[in-house]
Amino acid sequence: MNTRTEHDLLGDMEIQAQAWYGIQTQRALDNFDITGVPISHFPELINALAMVKAAAAAANREIGALSVAKADAIIAACNDIIDGKLHDQFVVDLIQGGAGTSTNMNANEVIANLALEKLGHDKGQYQHLHPNDDVNRSQSTNDAYPTAVCVGVQFAARPLIDAIQNLNRALSAKALEFADVVKMGRTQLQDAVPMTLGQEFEAFSVNLGEDIDRINEACTLLCEVNLGGTAIGTGINAHPRYRALAVRRLAEISGLPMVSATHLVEATSDMGAFVFFSGILKRFAVKLGKMCNDLRLLSSGPRTGLGEIQLPAMQPGSSIMPGKVNPVIPEAVNQTVYQVIASDLAVTLAAEAGQLQLNAMEPLIVYNLLNSMKMLGSACRMLETRCISGITANREQCARHVDNSIGIITALVPHIGYSNSSRIASIALNTGSTVRELVIAEGLLDEAQLDRLLSPQSMLAPQAEVS
Amino acid sequence: MNTRTEHDLLGDMEIQAQAWYGIQTQRALDNFDITGVPISHFPELINALAMVKAAAAAANREIGALSVAKADAIIAACNDIIDGKLHDQFVVDLIQGGAGTSTNMNANEVIANLALEKLGHDKGQYQHLHPNDDVNRSQSTNDAYPTAVCVGVQFAARPLIDAIQNLNRALSAKALEFADVVKMGRTQLQDAVPMTLGQEFEAFSVNLGEDIDRINEACTLLCEVNLGGTAIGTGINAHPRYRALAVRRLAEISGLPMVSATHLVEATSDMGAFVFFSGILKRFAVKLGKMCNDLRLLSSGPRTGLGEIQLPAMQPGSSIMPGKVNPVIPEAVNQTVYQVIASDLAVTLAAEAGQLQLNAMEPLIVYNLLNSMKMLGSACRMLETRCISGITANREQCARHVDNSIGIITALVPHIGYSNSSRIASIALNTGSTVRELVIAEGLLDEAQLDRLLSPQSMLAPQAEVS
Amino acid sequence: MNTRTEHDLLGDMEIQAQAWYGIQTQRALDNFDITGVPISHFPELINALAMVKAAAAAANREIGALSVAKADAIIAACNDIIDGKLHDQFVVDLIQGGAGTSTNMNANEVIANLALEKLGHDKGQYQHLHPNDDVNRSQSTNDAYPTAVCVGVQFAARPLIDAIQNLNRALSAKALEFADVVKMGRTQLQDAVPMTLGQEFEAFSVNLGEDIDRINEACTLLCEVNLGGTAIGTGINAHPRYRALAVRRLAEISGLPMVSATHLVEATSDMGAFVFFSGILKRFAVKLGKMCNDLRLLSSGPRTGLGEIQLPAMQPGSSIMPGKVNPVIPEAVNQTVYQVIASDLAVTLAAEAGQLQLNAMEPLIVYNLLNSMKMLGSACRMLETRCISGITANREQCARHVDNSIGIITALVPHIGYSNSSRIASIALNTGSTVRELVIAEGLLDEAQLDRLLSPQSMLAPQAEVS
Amino acid sequence: MNTRTEHDLLGDMEIQAQAWYGIQTQRALDNFDITGVPISHFPELINALAMVKAAAAAANREIGALSVAKADAIIAACNDIIDGKLHDQFVVDLIQGGAGTSTNMNANEVIANLALEKLGHDKGQYQHLHPNDDVNRSQSTNDAYPTAVCVGVQFAARPLIDAIQNLNRALSAKALEFADVVKMGRTQLQDAVPMTLGQEFEAFSVNLGEDIDRINEACTLLCEVNLGGTAIGTGINAHPRYRALAVRRLAEISGLPMVSATHLVEATSDMGAFVFFSGILKRFAVKLGKMCNDLRLLSSGPRTGLGEIQLPAMQPGSSIMPGKVNPVIPEAVNQTVYQVIASDLAVTLAAEAGQLQLNAMEPLIVYNLLNSMKMLGSACRMLETRCISGITANREQCARHVDNSIGIITALVPHIGYSNSSRIASIALNTGSTVRELVIAEGLLDEAQLDRLLSPQSMLAPQAEVS
Repeated sequence: MNTRTEHDLLGDMEIQAQAWYGIQTQRALDNFDITGVPISHFPELINALAMVKAAAAAANREIGALSVAKADAIIAACNDIIDGKLHDQFVVDLIQGGAGTSTNMNANEVIANLALEKLGHDKGQYQHLHPNDDVNRSQSTNDAYPTAVCVGVQFAARPLIDAIQNLNRALSAKALEFADVVKMGRTQLQDAVPMTLGQEFEAFSVNLGEDIDRINEACTLLCEVNLGGTAIGTGINAHPRYRALAVRRLAEISGLPMVSATHLVEATSDMGAFVFFSGILKRFAVKLGKMCNDLRLLSSGPRTGLGEIQLPAMQPGSSIMPGKVNPVIPEAVNQTVYQVIASDLAVTLAAEAGQLQLNAMEPLIVYNLLNSMKMLGSACRMLETRCISGITANREQCARHVDNSIGIITALVPHIGYSNSSRIASIALNTGSTVRELVIAEGLLDEAQLDRLLSPQSMLAPQAEVS
Repeated sequence: MNTRTEHDLLGDMEIQAQAWYGIQTQRALDNFDITGVPISHFPELINALAMVKAAAAAANREIGALSVAKADAIIAACNDIIDGKLHDQFVVDLIQGGAGTSTNMNANEVIANLALEKLGHDKGQYQHLHPNDDVNRSQSTNDAYPTAVCVGVQFAARPLIDAIQNLNRALSAKALEFADVVKMGRTQLQDAVPMTLGQEFEAFSVNLGEDIDRINEACTLLCEVNLGGTAIGTGINAHPRYRALAVRRLAEISGLPMVSATHLVEATSDMGAFVFFSGILKRFAVKLGKMCNDLRLLSSGPRTGLGEIQLPAMQPGSSIMPGKVNPVIPEAVNQTVYQVIASDLAVTLAAEAGQLQLNAMEPLIVYNLLNSMKMLGSACRMLETRCISGITANREQCARHVDNSIGIITALVPHIGYSNSSRIASIALNTGSTVRELVIAEGLLDEAQLDRLLSPQSMLAPQAEVS
Repeated sequence: MNTRTEHDLLGDMEIQAQAWYGIQTQRALDNFDITGVPISHFPELINALAMVKAAAAAANREIGALSVAKADAIIAACNDIIDGKLHDQFVVDLIQGGAGTSTNMNANEVIANLALEKLGHDKGQYQHLHPNDDVNRSQSTNDAYPTAVCVGVQFAARPLIDAIQNLNRALSAKALEFADVVKMGRTQLQDAVPMTLGQEFEAFSVNLGEDIDRINEACTLLCEVNLGGTAIGTGINAHPRYRALAVRRLAEISGLPMVSATHLVEATSDMGAFVFFSGILKRFAVKLGKMCNDLRLLSSGPRTGLGEIQLPAMQPGSSIMPGKVNPVIPEAVNQTVYQVIASDLAVTLAAEAGQLQLNAMEPLIVYNLLNSMKMLGSACRMLETRCISGITANREQCARHVDNSIGIITALVPHIGYSNSSRIASIALNTGSTVRELVIAEGLLDEAQLDRLLSPQSMLAPQAEVS
Repeated sequence: MNTRTEHDLLGDMEIQAQAWYGIQTQRALDNFDITGVPISHFPELINALAMVKAAAAAANREIGALSVAKADAIIAACNDIIDGKLHDQFVVDLIQGGAGTSTNMNANEVIANLALEKLGHDKGQYQHLHPNDDVNRSQSTNDAYPTAVCVGVQFAARPLIDAIQNLNRALSAKALEFADVVKMGRTQLQDAVPMTLGQEFEAFSVNLGEDIDRINEACTLLCEVNLGGTAIGTGINAHPRYRALAVRRLAEISGLPMVSATHLVEATSDMGAFVFFSGILKRFAVKLGKMCNDLRLLSSGPRTGLGEIQLPAMQPGSSIMPGKVNPVIPEAVNQTVYQVIASDLAVTLAAEAGQLQLNAMEPLIVYNLLNSMKMLGSACRMLETRCISGITANREQCARHVDNSIGIITALVPHIGYSNSSRIASIALNTGSTVRELVIAEGLLDEAQLDRLLSPQSMLAPQAEVS
């Protein structure tokens, strides 16, 4: 195989000639094989890394820490990557020791080699432009990597938010479609009082929709970065003007309102914004899970369950039971939800394990945040297109439930009293009679009164006229 | 207030004259106020501490490290405590810094003062018998405390096992009572094939019963103790014969097959047996939770749910909805289950946080193990007496479900083929007809054949004769 | 014993004559014995319940749903409770089945009996004023209980915020005191570059301080309540004007900016705001844990650890090792942190388990939120008063670390190059020489240059002049 | 593209001609895109599926439910797969709805097409041999899938156990190498009493080694399977002799002591053995994490940390700090540990979510178990080869720690008394003198006595002669 020789603190190593990454990336490839998930699985992170490197180069150019030629070559290389080039060269396992050093060096090396080519040099001729001295100029992994993560996570949030919005629209459309389907509400799985199926789907929609705001708020916390803090936040070996310049350039390049954190020593080891973000993803997952639990309950049957709605059939349900169709999409979403809840725990554990001036477990946090967002986005799209949009109401079953229900007696309490109501509820339960039959039989109310009091408009909203 | 003066490394302190504990307990009281749950909440731990102290005193007497008079007084004091005396003097918060030192000293001080009284001295006259030099002789918190925990947890497991056994008996009784109630089984909340309600309750019983074995196995791991290892497991300042003697005496006093761990340095910082035990409690909790979820599903209704069983009413369900009765007992158990799952996480976190030769977070582990067992025991008793024993079957509803079900067509597949079966299932679903009606109408089978094939004995077990 | 007879859906029961609570509270006492922690453990929740009941009574009076006499008696009773009266009558276990019905009824019954006394009647004479019909008027547990929780949690947040603020002040004071103590910063537990001990404590302070804002933001989400939604959010049996009125009165009485949720069906089953709140408590716990881990590391020793700071001695550390003093306060806080992280899991599990129109597991959420806040408040106070305020710096050790460190060579890189720096670092590591000695020996820089470049002002902040 | 048409309950679909899987696999591919991890990532599961299918075919042949020709073709196809053929055709995402139906059908379809080829037919000509009717004969996903998982998890445990054993050997070798390195033991990060570095590494080895037994015990629980239970454990549509035969054949084929569970209805929904297994993996992870935390502490420095050991350098540590080498391998293992702890939570959540006769979340359990084992195996290998085997002791630093330590005074307590010891410890701490100097200066012991009492042999084990 064709190789070139590269050198670092630990000695020489042969690197495949066609590789755009270098020796430190290769060492990381040899060292870490945990998840099998490389950086390239998450293009938003790659783009964010390139933006940070471009911002640093621009700032270094302005303060004279990099020549114009080098800085321009670096920035051009970063732009190529942002355009999608060489993403397959980001090969390191996302879970790694070294607090992200290998990810940072993977970026430095790919960018350096791409910049070298632009300057007319071969890969590996770092004497002309160096991954550390030039691409990583004025930076440390400890500020460049978390800053890139802050940007990348925000980018990754966009497709998730889009997916939530589309899911919400599908739920709202169903809410409209089912606005006139009166059904029994249930509390603690016991028959309660009437509502519409439209209200139920509207509640789903409102419930999930709130989390778009929460995710956006969580992104705001990610706009404060420690770029310029270098090794531990004191800014050693960076020019006094570098910090502000680099963050300003990053804001321009990323289009995000990035600002410098107020206390860079604090910011360098702080994982608070990631814990917060993960907590929001968990919150959304919990809501999604509750909705899918409900969808599975409401569609249970077809004959011996609640049977109020029908989910679209996506695949045969059973190899042994003919005609069986299962709620496979909500089931897959429920499992995704559990995985995201578990990921939040991994984030929590990693955040708590930070020691002194740095959190060496940050790569685990990054992996779980990006993975959770990716899985949740998929889950939302799957749920929208393969389940929600095809749900139909079993209108007869819903109506039958209301007619048979004892719970509708609640609407009569203001008219026949709590004591009469309790007694009739009890008789209905024991005899199988309907509330309507019993109230008429006892002469407490007549048909017309019952028609009015048990009409949807009477039972589905507050009533001024209670007797 | 009447006080006596005591002294330690940090200086003098006034102790209430009537207190049986001393200065180090008082300092711990002042230092720690986290849970509000004192040691006395868990009498099994107090008894275990007294047993360890008695075993140590007996061993010290044999090797000449304690005078007979002192050892006998200490042992007599320990016996009083094992008989239930002075449990209210174990006052320290179970969650504490110092790796259990305060719990150990609380025991040392109460025992010393009780032994002093037996020797005719006043409380606090430690020149005659000292909490550290005599009661704690040849010990360190780092071996005495974990050893006591290993014993105490086993004691606390007994009432839990009793509660599980009683719950199991109640479930078995119901399995017998419901042995002839044929109902539809459900997979993925969708109608599957028939079974009996008795099989369902027998499955609950078998499922929970297995965990009695698991808990007993987990107790076995707790029989290996580091007593004699003193500070870090090297046995510094203990006599070479002490370790074996002390463990033998502890086995005699506790009635448990306690043995010395093979590697005391390892055993001193190892929390593995506790993590294991907690995992078993979690496993049992998960099973209990699944059963309670099922009970709530099966009793959902009364009119718009599955309605196959009825839970006994334990309290009115609603202040606004007359006649509503809720599954309050399973709901309380489900919440207990979540708390126990959460406690297992606390145990895990504490176990992982051990550093070098000791785990300073062991008190948190102890608190969560004892608390989980206490809560699970209560939950089992509550469930047995206030729910399971009063459950009744809604036999008509169960039968109706089977008759209406499409799932019973599975039993016809060997006779009319998968293709016919699928087609008929589909027609049944769309038209509301029963499988029986459609099969007869198509002339695929006659009434007699259907009676035989759809009889409970045909559908509830494997069948040799399939055509 | 003196008793009175009370009656409910399930029949008659004897209640102790002196009890201010009634039959439904008594049933709950009999039914639930899980945690042993009664409502009275959390006075903020009791006060919040009384405020909701007072607000409802005021609203009912205005719309004519309660007579002025009854409403005034109820409001007067609520005010007594808010003033601290009868808190010991809130006896039900916080973890309970029934979605909070027993807590709600405990409040309804105590308030009813207190109001009856004000009207000149005996306890239990509910024909004059009824717990359900009057105190619970226009309400369901399903709106009154979550609303009270939203208020109570905000009240419980206040002492926590106060404790955080005091802790922060103590940290800031230490930051000032240690502003001139130069020490080595560490990343990944390896020597990095210099910083001051003051920067380290300032970082702790800034880090924790941010969470006061987060807690306040989390309170904002709790200001949206479903009061007026009654059973499932449709407002059945409530007057159309009641909802707005009741919330307005609640805002006045509580002094909190309470508003009506936009979609009451959604709000009735939604646990999102609690999941959010719990996530914030977890985030704060994680930060607190990281700081305590650092304090224990920095104070490790006294001779074989980092030994940069000394924690105040709070109790003797060992019964076997003379003079040993342990970091017991941070250890207790670390354990509290784990318990809070675990509680967040319990909240998550409970939230995900909600079904259809209600979350029956809400009591578990309430217990864990209130308990976590109580424990965190204690932990902060304990940490502030018994640890942080007494910390001293080991100035000589800090200085020695900097002088001996190889990491200071980072500051020389811009002057002697990365290659020279790496080589000298390597020699220093292998020979035990200091960086300063080697640089002088090689003639790379002179004493004066080194004095300037390795001065604190050069190493602790960005430097414009790099050569 | 070349395709063939296949048909199922939902209609026709075009399948790529070269695909060995069929329509149901294709539907699953379209439906589920959650993790991006296909079944083929876990060859042990594929082999286990093939073994179950072969065992079922053999049993069906014996009871006459399958023709010899069909059965033999199926078995031959299974053997090819067990030999590693067509693993890339197992394409479905491991996380899926349908309780494993898609995984089961992926196996059924690949095996059917391979068997068809052996019988001289083309892919998709299912009239000759059918995925459902023949390959899945006498089975349901609900028994075939969990049975395969029970087998596959045991296979996957083997490389993990091998990796643990190799890691253990490396630790034991180091224990031997460091047997004479006396160092200070630490409790609560504070100097305690002496031990050897060999004891410390032996403790690691013993600690991890115990978990090989635990994993093997956990495998035992997985030997009980529900094969023959078909849809819900009642064995509907299976021959009475099938169950025993199929399990016996599976035992033969797999070489594992597989037996039939005692209660198949229970076994069908029970996830207890998986929860147990996951708990054991978590326990091992916790131990691994504790050890890596210790390795990072012990190697902290080089100048300002504990510095007792040196980890081999695996990659440059910093782009900004020359000569810095970080403990990247333990850091990567610590992160793996957190991921495994999180996976255990996912397993727990999925197990608790089972409903009625099946657990639809089992695929998530399978994914997490297999993934955790894979990650732990990698972590052990990485740790063994890239860290443990290259660790060296800093003997001078260890000796210096012992000499300077105050903790060695513990060994003098039996000779000079606790009171003298405490006083001298205190003076030593405040003045910086050594214990040895002070004891000599005070004339409490002479040099010879001190040499003897402070010799390694005196301090590292119990001593009979105490004065």
